[in-house]
Amino acid sequence: MITVYGYSVSGNCHKVRLLLEQLGRAYRWIEVDSSRGETRTPEFLARNPNGKVPVLERDDGRILTESNAMLYWLAEDTPYFVGDAWQRAQTLSWMFFEQYSHEPCVAVARFVCGWTPLDSPRRAELPRLRERGHQALAVMERHLRAHAWFSGADYGIADIALFAYTDVADHGGIALDTYPAIRAWLARVRATPRFVPMPPPPAEAAARIAQSA
Amino acid sequence: MITVYGYSVSGNCHKVRLLLEQLGRAYRWIEVDSSRGETRTPEFLARNPNGKVPVLERDDGRILTESNAMLYWLAEDTPYFVGDAWQRAQTLSWMFFEQYSHEPCVAVARFVCGWTPLDSPRRAELPRLRERGHQALAVMERHLRAHAWFSGADYGIADIALFAYTDVADHGGIALDTYPAIRAWLARVRATPRFVPMPPPPAEAAARIAQSA
Repeated sequence: MITVYGYSVSGNCHKVRLLLEQLGRAYRWIEVDSSRGETRTPEFLARNPNGKVPVLERDDGRILTESNAMLYWLAEDTPYFVGDAWQRAQTLSWMFFEQYSHEPCVAVARFVCGWTPLDSPRRAELPRLRERGHQALAVMERHLRAHAWFSGADYGIADIALFAYTDVADHGGIALDTYPAIRAWLARVRATPRFVPMPPPPAEAAARIAQSA
Repeated sequence: MITVYGYSVSGNCHKVRLLLEQLGRAYRWIEVDSSRGETRTPEFLARNPNGKVPVLERDDGRILTESNAMLYWLAEDTPYFVGDAWQRAQTLSWMFFEQYSHEPCVAVARFVCGWTPLDSPRRAELPRLRERGHQALAVMERHLRAHAWFSGADYGIADIALFAYTDVADHGGIALDTYPAIRAWLARVRATPRFVPMPPPPAEAAARIAQSA
């Protein structure tokens, strides 16, 4: 049995849940609210010294960190990570793009809008985060004009990685109106077998998001 | 034959050169100075719409972006990426850590010190970049107290990925004095067969780095 320590409304955590559900794998989920400092306790830092969720733990205590490394491990020898070495490298390329060029703007804009006070100085970062978020979305849109998926011929782990925060980009004030190919791809992802949506943000975060447009 | 479009003093680009040299692979290197806008030309953006070096191109025109995806592809079936799926996931975990928690502080601090004017407003970011850089280095130090490498039992692509910017952390004003395990690991990497160092920054950048302590 696999145990995942995760914050259910974090896209990085939801990626892992989505793949586990689609694989039909049994797992235990332990909720860790990173927004309330629960990833900074000595107990949590013993599992991941980098202080981030998700953390994947096996029954023998072995631990894996980094959401996209978990997708890689879970998808090995499944239809969610296929192709020759070149195709797999392309899939991983999109996953590195996600962590370097997409998540630090699209996810962070969402975090600032929903999980910081309305008068937080961090809100000054929002224009730049949104500008860079749109740059990442433009790269995705361009790819999706010619390809159905990010993981090769079929849906796979690069799609799962990129779906998580793209689907809630509007929470950070990043509208998808001008990206028809992305919106069609999001719909295709939602239609995959055993898809599960990420839960909505908690009420306090949802209220802040509504006031952060 | 492989062609790499890269900026020789960029750690992300040097990663790819280092592995190609250690593998003894023939390659063509086309210098692209990202600090002078050469990654923003229409010709370059046609190769990588994300406007970043390195870019790897095969003779048939097929392209791969993202330095760590290149390491993965080049190292497949070589001693630089070994182990079972779990070990490979651990190696990739360090490579995702590098791109998310290390490069955006350690490499960006170096860029701000060497490649922005001495009166750039971006220099206000330095204290925070250095603080977060030290957090990433502390995670590495902790690992290296118990392990010789980041890629499993032997040197491999996670070491190459993390070496690139750690070895020049001082360019960004991030001193390694308090990380004895990291310094010993850097020395071990430099002693690997066919190791090649990254060239020093150009004179103008070196002068700014000297004035940015």
